[in-house]
Amino acid sequence: MSELAGNCLIGQSGGPTAVINASVAGIVAEALNHSCIEEVYGALNGVQGILNEDLIDLAAESQQAIRGLRFTPGAALGTCRLKLKKPSEFERALAVFKAHNIRYFFFVGGPEAMETAAKLAALAKEQAYDLRVIGVPKTTDNDLANTDHSPGYGSAVKYIGATVRELAIDADAMGQNDLVTIVEVMGRNAGWMAAGASLAKRKDQPNDPPHIVLVPEVAFDSAKFIEDVKRVLKRERHCVVVAGEGLVDKDGNYVAVETHATDAFGQAQLGGIGEYLKDLVEEQLRLHVRVARLGVAQRAAAHLASKTDADEAFLAGQAAVKAAVNGESDKMVTLIRGDGDTYTCETGLASLAEVGANLKKLPREWINEDGVSMNFQFFRYATPLIQGEVSVPYDNGLPAYIRLAKESVDRALPPFEG
Amino acid sequence: MSELAGNCLIGQSGGPTAVINASVAGIVAEALNHSCIEEVYGALNGVQGILNEDLIDLAAESQQAIRGLRFTPGAALGTCRLKLKKPSEFERALAVFKAHNIRYFFFVGGPEAMETAAKLAALAKEQAYDLRVIGVPKTTDNDLANTDHSPGYGSAVKYIGATVRELAIDADAMGQNDLVTIVEVMGRNAGWMAAGASLAKRKDQPNDPPHIVLVPEVAFDSAKFIEDVKRVLKRERHCVVVAGEGLVDKDGNYVAVETHATDAFGQAQLGGIGEYLKDLVEEQLRLHVRVARLGVAQRAAAHLASKTDADEAFLAGQAAVKAAVNGESDKMVTLIRGDGDTYTCETGLASLAEVGANLKKLPREWINEDGVSMNFQFFRYATPLIQGEVSVPYDNGLPAYIRLAKESVDRALPPFEG
Repeated sequence: MSELAGNCLIGQSGGPTAVINASVAGIVAEALNHSCIEEVYGALNGVQGILNEDLIDLAAESQQAIRGLRFTPGAALGTCRLKLKKPSEFERALAVFKAHNIRYFFFVGGPEAMETAAKLAALAKEQAYDLRVIGVPKTTDNDLANTDHSPGYGSAVKYIGATVRELAIDADAMGQNDLVTIVEVMGRNAGWMAAGASLAKRKDQPNDPPHIVLVPEVAFDSAKFIEDVKRVLKRERHCVVVAGEGLVDKDGNYVAVETHATDAFGQAQLGGIGEYLKDLVEEQLRLHVRVARLGVAQRAAAHLASKTDADEAFLAGQAAVKAAVNGESDKMVTLIRGDGDTYTCETGLASLAEVGANLKKLPREWINEDGVSMNFQFFRYATPLIQGEVSVPYDNGLPAYIRLAKESVDRALPPFEG
Repeated sequence: MSELAGNCLIGQSGGPTAVINASVAGIVAEALNHSCIEEVYGALNGVQGILNEDLIDLAAESQQAIRGLRFTPGAALGTCRLKLKKPSEFERALAVFKAHNIRYFFFVGGPEAMETAAKLAALAKEQAYDLRVIGVPKTTDNDLANTDHSPGYGSAVKYIGATVRELAIDADAMGQNDLVTIVEVMGRNAGWMAAGASLAKRKDQPNDPPHIVLVPEVAFDSAKFIEDVKRVLKRERHCVVVAGEGLVDKDGNYVAVETHATDAFGQAQLGGIGEYLKDLVEEQLRLHVRVARLGVAQRAAAHLASKTDADEAFLAGQAAVKAAVNGESDKMVTLIRGDGDTYTCETGLASLAEVGANLKKLPREWINEDGVSMNFQFFRYATPLIQGEVSVPYDNGLPAYIRLAKESVDRALPPFEG
């Protein structure tokens, strides 16, 4: 290991989570411990800020602001769904790094961010520019490979679990037979978030709501769904259904696509599965249906973040800096669960290329035979991730989230021509 | 005042709120103070439980359970949307009261509940049955007349305000120009809840999200709406719209009706205004739109209840018992705001008939000239109602709401034949 002196740059990518800023706080806090790291910069809106040389001076922020990142949702540096594609874009990014003597690059994001980070690391190596690149995992979808779980997931399912519990209590109180509640949750290709709604059940109460959990890992079959609703309503007065937005039919086609236009990551905008299922139940069973579509509240509801999740997000940020200072590069920080009965978590490292190329699906063997509920393996996995509450300060009745001052770093290069 | 010895009965009616159980807790706690109140019963699912003689013994509940009502959402006794209509139903209700020596009836609910309570009081008087009937206000809609505000409203708008703030932080972080976020909120005929989303703005930051608030008090005009979105996007990078489900056009017709079938209160099921506005913006402006539909989470999210609201709900329950014991009947408890600069609130009484017949609209003069934002009068009114956080216990990572044991009271009458 060689000590590498220079500046560090932090970027955030993809959809925010309730704790993505906690990782930035961990990076900034840990960077202070290492004199080889001179300036601490942030890229505004991820790769967009790198291309445009929109950098801010994170060391100029107050300690209060950095502490506040541990409970503030959104992406404090800004994020984007832009993906670097053209060689000229990677060249530009590296030119910006060189112009600002960036020797440490920390990229907090999901699979796409890890791919981008890997390519930047490769280009730097090719050009013999000494750069250490470490990814910090972030995704409510929990689909990043090679890590036990991703920061962001625990808080999302704590919020979803609490909300489903509250919606179910409300429905149960209505004294109305055969009321059907449908909750649409996010989760593009994996059922992690929908499955997390199962946490609303009390311990050892498998019949508690949600009664039906629809995940993309199980092909959606409308006839079976209607039978499932009928089966639940034989036993219970009301039925709570949780549906992941990314449900697919037996041919692998999305059941509900809101807009076929794709975003910059090339993804169709999903949504509408709640309304779709509502129509189905109303038409075929003539029952009263309520729909809730939690939308991005699922990833933004920091007022109900999991302390375990927020602390691990911070830890992952710290670990990224430690690894880089120790000479590591081209890696993503991973979370490793201890083997014991009591939940413990430490960090490790995985190769960026490996992580970006694979997506972690909800294991089929964690789903019960009925295809619409989770077994003990899922509960054993997910329950520790939602423990503890983050203490959010309130001002005038509402959560007092912080904003960064965002002092600009002077540009050193001409504008990017693309 | 004459001391009236006998049993008391508590019922809950209409949609639950985050604090409707706190009122029940206030009634039960206060009833313990008065030896003239012998048994404390609850009617399961409101008037439905009265007709079916489904009563439970609330005095048999643990103190822990009654304390837990102060932070548990839903309606712990159950509620319903059934409305007593036929004279035979009122006769039956009174027969059940007589069979159980009910001398005190406390009905926690909205306008419909107050109407029913008034009719029951009248019938008892007609039959010279000594019965004291006191209504306790409850509605997230805040449309009950003769009270400064209703318990349930403060918690609903605290939740909506916090959620809109979080959704806006997320949208702002996306680094995407012209992103439009639409949040659909409840509120049938009055814009109180949608207006409450304005509380998401920081103090003295009128340009903070939400940028456009659509309330039923202002006739919806799609051309003006599109112009409003364009106007906001000239100034801001993204636009947050909050829309009440009950928007009406200039002819007074609902803009979005989900199901024309009406419920037992004779109300059409509203909903879908979010999707409607999304289509409008996508078609006319070709912009990227996100929708969140908070659904009944708005009235069930006790994890983010307002302490002011929960305490006032409890206070209103206590006041109902005090009034009844003091010989009052045929009244609803009201909340009266003090005149001073510092918010204070005490209880009063209003005639049930008066309350049930009128609905309180959001005053037009609290809405700015632009028709889509609130002025200082609204903020002065609503801000005190969301102050303070209720301390909810957590178990295994989620709010540990309580359930009543619901010990049945033996029936004394044959079943109701209708």
